Amino acid sequence: MMATWLVLSTYFVHSTSLNNGLARRPPMGWLSWQRFRCETDCGTYPDDCINDKLYMDMADRLANDGWLALGYNQVNIDDCWSLRTRDPQTNEQVADPNRFPNGIKGVADYVHKLGLKLGLYNDIGSKTCGGYTGIDGNYQLDAQTFASWDIDMIKVDGCNANVPDMWQMYPAFGEALNKTSRPIVYSCSWPAYIPGHAETIPSIDNTTLADIAQYCNLWRNYGDIGDSWDSVKNIMQYWQRNYSNYSNDAFLHVAGPGNWNDPDMIIEGDNGLSLSEAESQFAIWAIIAAPLLMSNDLRNMDPKFKSLLQNKEIIAINQDPLGKQGACVYKNGNEVIWMRELADDKSIAVVLQNLGNAGFGTYLQFQVDLIPDFVSGWDSSTVFAVRNILNHTDLGQQKTYFKDLIQPSSVGMYKLTIV
Amino acid sequence: MMATWLVLSTYFVHSTSLNNGLARRPPMGWLSWQRFRCETDCGTYPDDCINDKLYMDMADRLANDGWLALGYNQVNIDDCWSLRTRDPQTNEQVADPNRFPNGIKGVADYVHKLGLKLGLYNDIGSKTCGGYTGIDGNYQLDAQTFASWDIDMIKVDGCNANVPDMWQMYPAFGEALNKTSRPIVYSCSWPAYIPGHAETIPSIDNTTLADIAQYCNLWRNYGDIGDSWDSVKNIMQYWQRNYSNYSNDAFLHVAGPGNWNDPDMIIEGDNGLSLSEAESQFAIWAIIAAPLLMSNDLRNMDPKFKSLLQNKEIIAINQDPLGKQGACVYKNGNEVIWMRELADDKSIAVVLQNLGNAGFGTYLQFQVDLIPDFVSGWDSSTVFAVRNILNHTDLGQQKTYFKDLIQPSSVGMYKLTIV
Repeated sequence: MMATWLVLSTYFVHSTSLNNGLARRPPMGWLSWQRFRCETDCGTYPDDCINDKLYMDMADRLANDGWLALGYNQVNIDDCWSLRTRDPQTNEQVADPNRFPNGIKGVADYVHKLGLKLGLYNDIGSKTCGGYTGIDGNYQLDAQTFASWDIDMIKVDGCNANVPDMWQMYPAFGEALNKTSRPIVYSCSWPAYIPGHAETIPSIDNTTLADIAQYCNLWRNYGDIGDSWDSVKNIMQYWQRNYSNYSNDAFLHVAGPGNWNDPDMIIEGDNGLSLSEAESQFAIWAIIAAPLLMSNDLRNMDPKFKSLLQNKEIIAINQDPLGKQGACVYKNGNEVIWMRELADDKSIAVVLQNLGNAGFGTYLQFQVDLIPDFVSGWDSSTVFAVRNILNHTDLGQQKTYFKDLIQPSSVGMYKLTIV
Repeated sequence: MMATWLVLSTYFVHSTSLNNGLARRPPMGWLSWQRFRCETDCGTYPDDCINDKLYMDMADRLANDGWLALGYNQVNIDDCWSLRTRDPQTNEQVADPNRFPNGIKGVADYVHKLGLKLGLYNDIGSKTCGGYTGIDGNYQLDAQTFASWDIDMIKVDGCNANVPDMWQMYPAFGEALNKTSRPIVYSCSWPAYIPGHAETIPSIDNTTLADIAQYCNLWRNYGDIGDSWDSVKNIMQYWQRNYSNYSNDAFLHVAGPGNWNDPDMIIEGDNGLSLSEAESQFAIWAIIAAPLLMSNDLRNMDPKFKSLLQNKEIIAINQDPLGKQGACVYKNGNEVIWMRELADDKSIAVVLQNLGNAGFGTYLQFQVDLIPDFVSGWDSSTVFAVRNILNHTDLGQQKTYFKDLIQPSSVGMYKLTIV
C-alpha cells in the first residue's frame, strides 16, 4: 500500500495525490462520535456508553438490516476507547479493559466475521480531544499496534498538537501506517486545525489541500457537526463552492478516488433534523462526494429516515466512480442549485435546495445554461430525461429547463440524462 | 357579550379582565398564515393559495379526521383574503371575489355546517401587513360587516398603525365588536407592537398586559413564528418565566379563562421541526396555556405528527379549566424544567426539557422542592404517581424526586398526582 509515497524530508510537491489504493469511493459506514460522544459511564447508560457492546450492536445492525449490502461497510470507533496512559512495559496504547475486555482486536474480529471493516480513532497530539492517549510522536509504535489489532481505517484528530508542526506530524504517521503493510485508510483532521483550513494560504505554513491529499485519504476541513439544522446549514454553506470555478477551487479539484473532503457525519435518525432537513443533508453529502459515516442509533431508527439513508439512487450518486465533487451553479437568497458530473458522461446529478423557513415552498428551476461550458453535450436544445431520485419518480423529457416545487428546508434531487 | 365592557374614554383601570364569556379555554383550531402565507396565485398553486377551497379543505379535515372531537373547533382565515380597496358604494371591506366567490359568509356557512367556527383576520391600521384593506378607523362599519358574515373570532394585526394610538384603537374596535351582539373572540396583536411588549413600562404609553386583558381575549406578545427550531426556541425562551414569581410576573398572572398569551402558531407537520422538536413545541405550548392554532397542511400529515397533536392527555393539560399559565421552576444551561398547576389540586403538570444538540441525552430530575410554596400539598415526603403523558406510560409512585432520560432537542411531559 501507499506505493507512491513521497519523500517526506523535502517540502511538499503539489498535484500528486495519495495513491495507496484505498478509499477509491467515499467511505460509508457508521461512526460513534455525534450520537454517543464520550459517554463512559456504562453503569448509568449500559446501552449507550463507549464499549465493545456498542460497536458490536451497530455491526449487527449494519450486517442484518440491509446497510452492508448498500455499501455501509464499516464501524468506526471514535474518541474515549483507550486508557489515559500507555502500557508501562511496552509503551503501547491500551483499550480500556473494563469497556473493551477483548481489546480492539476483539471488536475487529467480530466485525470482520460480519463482513465489515473497523475504524479506530486517535490524535496526532499528546492527548485526544477527550483527554485520552494521543500518538505524541510514537508514530511507528502506534501504527504497528493499531495494525496488529487489524483495523482498516484510522481517524487522526488534531487536539493538543502544535499546529505549525502538523505538516510534518501527519505525513510521519502516514508513513508509519504505510510501513505496517496493512491497508489502513487514513483520515486526517489536519486541515480543520489549520487557519484558513488550507484553502487560502494559511498563516502558519504553506500547506494546501493538494499537499494534504498526498498523505491522507480523507480529511475534515471544518468544525464538528452537531445535532441541529443550524449546524448542518453552516457546513453546507461552507461547501457552496462554484462549480464553474472547478479547477481553481482549492477544495474541489483535489477530491477524487482516494481523496475526499469530509464535511463530517450524517446525523439523520438523531433528534435535530426533520425529514426535510435530513433529506437536505443526505442529498448535499451525496452530491459533494462526502464520506457517508452515519452517527445515529441503528438499533432504533424511524423507518422514513432509514429508507432515506438506504436510497440506492442517492447512494449511487455519492459513490459514482468518477469521484468528482459537486458544487453550486446558482445561488440567490434561499435558493441554491447544485450539480455534479458523473462517470456516465451523458448524465449529471442536480439538487434544487430551498433554505427558506416559511410557507409551503416555491418552484425552483434548473436551466441547462447553468451547466459550465467544460461539461460537454449540454446546450439549450438538448433533450434530457429527468429522474427524481429522492422519491423515485420520472419527470419525463425536458428541454432548456425543468422545475419542481421545493418546500422550505427541503431539496429535490435529480439525475438528468441526455436522451 | 362583553357585558363588563368599561368606559373607554378614561384611562385603563387595572386588574379587571375581559369577561365577554368567550375563550374560557385556550382556542384550538387551524390558522393559515405560517403554512400558506399570502399566496394568492391560485393558477400556479391551486391547492395552496388563499381561497375558499383552502379553508373548506381544512374544515373537512378538522371535522373528519378526529380533530374536532378533540377540541380543534375553528378554521381561521389570515391575511390576504380581501380586495385592496373597499366597496365604493358601501365603504365595506370586500373578500376577493375570484378567490372567495361566495364571500366570507360562504365559508362561514360551510364550516358552521360541519360544527366548526370561523376566524377572520384584519388590521387595526390603514392596511394589513400584506397590504390589504385595514380597519383604519372604520370600527363600527367593519365590526358590523364581519358580524354579518357570521364570523366567530377576529385576529387584529397592528401593521400600518400609529403604535402610540393603539391603546385607543384596539379598545375602540373591541367596543364595536361588542355592539354587534354577535359573540366574537377578539385576538389583538397589540402587545407585539408595543416596545417592551407591555411587559416593562413601555416607552410610548403606560399600557400593561393587565390593561390589554380588559379588552382582548388573546394577544400576540412577540415576533411571528417561522418554520424552524430556531424560531420555536426563541419563542420558548421568551416564555421561560419564573413560576415562583407568578403573581409579580407581568405575563403570567393576567392569563386565565377568557384571557390568553399567544406565543403564535403550532407548526408541527411543516418542514422545520423534527419529531423531538415538535414534541417540545407542543408540550411547552400546552403547559403555558397557549392557544393551539395549527398552521400546517392537514390534508397531508405524517401519522407521528398527527398522533402528537391529537394526544388527549397533553390537550387536557392545555385546556385545564383552572387556566393557569405554566412557567419555569429550574434552568441550568440546556436543562429547563416547567410546571403548571391544574384544576385538580392534587395534580401538577411538569415538562423536563433538554435544549442540547449533542449526544443521546441525559437524565433530568424533577425534585419536589422545586414546587413553589404557594402550591399546597407538596413536600419532600409526599408520595406521588408519575404519568408520562407524552408516551402514555406510568412511571410508578415516587417520593422527593423522579428522573427520566431526555434526548437532545426533546422533552418529557408528565402529570404528577398526590397518592
